[in-house]
Amino acid sequence: MSDSALERLTPIVKESESSPMREMMKMMEEKKDLLSLSAGEARFEAPPELIKLAVQAMQSGKNLYTSTNGIPQIREALAAFAQKHFEGKIDPAKNILMTVGGMEAIYLAMRIVLDKGDKVLLPDPGWGVMRTVVERRGAHVEHYPLEEKGTWTINHEAILERMDEKTKLVVVNSPSNPTGATLSKEGFAALMEGAGQKGVFVLSDEVYHNYIYEGEHVSALSFGSLENLIVVNSFSKTFAVTGWRLGYAVADPWMIRQMGIYKESISLCSFSIGQWAMAEFLGRSEGYLKKAREFCRGNMEKMVTRLNAIPGVRCTRPQGGFYVLADFSQIEPSSQKLFKRLLDGGVAVVPGVFFGSQGEGRARLMFACPSDHIDRCLDRIEENLR
Amino acid sequence: MSDSALERLTPIVKESESSPMREMMKMMEEKKDLLSLSAGEARFEAPPELIKLAVQAMQSGKNLYTSTNGIPQIREALAAFAQKHFEGKIDPAKNILMTVGGMEAIYLAMRIVLDKGDKVLLPDPGWGVMRTVVERRGAHVEHYPLEEKGTWTINHEAILERMDEKTKLVVVNSPSNPTGATLSKEGFAALMEGAGQKGVFVLSDEVYHNYIYEGEHVSALSFGSLENLIVVNSFSKTFAVTGWRLGYAVADPWMIRQMGIYKESISLCSFSIGQWAMAEFLGRSEGYLKKAREFCRGNMEKMVTRLNAIPGVRCTRPQGGFYVLADFSQIEPSSQKLFKRLLDGGVAVVPGVFFGSQGEGRARLMFACPSDHIDRCLDRIEENLR
Repeated sequence: MSDSALERLTPIVKESESSPMREMMKMMEEKKDLLSLSAGEARFEAPPELIKLAVQAMQSGKNLYTSTNGIPQIREALAAFAQKHFEGKIDPAKNILMTVGGMEAIYLAMRIVLDKGDKVLLPDPGWGVMRTVVERRGAHVEHYPLEEKGTWTINHEAILERMDEKTKLVVVNSPSNPTGATLSKEGFAALMEGAGQKGVFVLSDEVYHNYIYEGEHVSALSFGSLENLIVVNSFSKTFAVTGWRLGYAVADPWMIRQMGIYKESISLCSFSIGQWAMAEFLGRSEGYLKKAREFCRGNMEKMVTRLNAIPGVRCTRPQGGFYVLADFSQIEPSSQKLFKRLLDGGVAVVPGVFFGSQGEGRARLMFACPSDHIDRCLDRIEENLR
Repeated sequence: MSDSALERLTPIVKESESSPMREMMKMMEEKKDLLSLSAGEARFEAPPELIKLAVQAMQSGKNLYTSTNGIPQIREALAAFAQKHFEGKIDPAKNILMTVGGMEAIYLAMRIVLDKGDKVLLPDPGWGVMRTVVERRGAHVEHYPLEEKGTWTINHEAILERMDEKTKLVVVNSPSNPTGATLSKEGFAALMEGAGQKGVFVLSDEVYHNYIYEGEHVSALSFGSLENLIVVNSFSKTFAVTGWRLGYAVADPWMIRQMGIYKESISLCSFSIGQWAMAEFLGRSEGYLKKAREFCRGNMEKMVTRLNAIPGVRCTRPQGGFYVLADFSQIEPSSQKLFKRLLDGGVAVVPGVFFGSQGEGRARLMFACPSDHIDRCLDRIEENLR
């Protein structure tokens, strides 16, 4: 028998894993007078009324466990919200699960759907954590490319042509992190039909749903069936309260039951106060949602214009979301080297390569922040790259 | 290729799983004018100062992501707290991980420590979710019995004699849910020594640490080594804020790193507001902790006395925690039938069999609630069983 407990373990997390990200964070922490465009969240004000409701909930003793699936009031509010997109009936008791941010919904869905050896289609560029969750299940990732033609888009044909017998799940993130790409209504319909025929699940990550700058948000709920669909959404990005860790999934009753019972052994339940506050606020959030969207649209226009004015930088106008993925390859083909150069000039961004091979030569810059902050950052970048 | 996505799935969660608990909850929901002693949490007031700090944090915009491991301030406060028990140095940067309640810490620890086929020693009676997490990893559970001799105790010899080459992990829960059993200082020292020699990890679930009615709480940190130890703790039970979902783990730097990187793909980070509020409050929580302990001690004495006054009921005095596991077997040997009988009499309890085979013929009753609530419940139980 071994005499060391630690020596008996096989590391589940590779030492290398997550290191580039943690290294980047460390470099940022060590840098003085740094301005950041690297955050993966809104840096504008949460709705004052929501905060007021949360404070009331906290002061009136709503600090205890809720049921695992969430309080009935928030599930009813969300069913009404989801119902706008869905023809059939969304049952608050059976179709909705509250989760610890969108993240837990993704983890649970992949835990229930994936087996060893399954294939999962993920976007490139796309959010890196998705790949980690898939690989931890012993499933394989195949990337489908997003396309940059004037603007970034999600091409459903690029997805459908990669679907084979091993494919169990497709992840769609519209609008996308980091590109702002969206999937058109026609494209989404064709994808849902093709996936349905082949028995492939679609995980639709719609956490940036409010931030659409061309047309309307197309929810995966619009196509009439929950049979092979898991919609992941979150209040975190929508209302600038990422620290509350509150998201949800909409899916078939069987799937919600599986995910809910699994959740009992991960987190027991989700943040109580946020559920109480959001249940009251959601129905009257329209004003804030519109204002926040217009605010982000203005910032996006500014950022795109200013980036394109820098010689050697190319930046297409995103369809939605909080970010641009700008092309700096004429200046510096390595996105990690570019990161260091911009950091030396006092601005933090995220290296494009963190989002996949198509991100190389690029950087992700966040624009969901005060407008003058964008100006100060762009002044520095301009100065630095001149 | 199958034409139904759902039909391709093998259920991970068995339909039967968690059903008895959910069935019980449903029966409780349908019952009118019910009084409950079934909650797994404190039903007394959270510290007013803590709520005030949380409100301030919420109003001052601390609603965003924190780092995965938690804000430095809370890890420093916790290191100081843990340091009281530990001879060596607790490094806030390396030994502490903030989690989504104690639950996530348990899930992460078991995810990192356990492989298929490993053996895990769990207490009987004990909290049922532990077993679920172990079995989902493909590991095997062997129970060690808690002993009721005047009071419930954890006997380290019952654990050591079950440790064999396959044993990877032992869970100790002192004070215990549902019995209030504790492990003595000498017993804990012998267990840590034996486990260390055999390379077996000890997961010490200390979430009820403040609620000790005989002597002092013995933390697993008192034995000088983190080599084979993961201590799980939580603010939820301690400060009556279970809905905040905020707990933590103290462990070896390698273990904390593995758990932290794994956490990135489950929950990203823990509840921000709670971290900020707790970081300030923890150092001056002594007054509340003492008051809450004395409050629970008084309730416990009342409940034990009143239960023992009912003919056919036997209830030993717990050493700690929020519950008694009283013996009703002379009245009704089936704990599920007893549950229904008590429910018909207007009081909800938890059937003892939910906690393991030794729980049969028993019921768990919670006393961390207002004293007059205990009286009203006991009046009904007395009346019902007369």
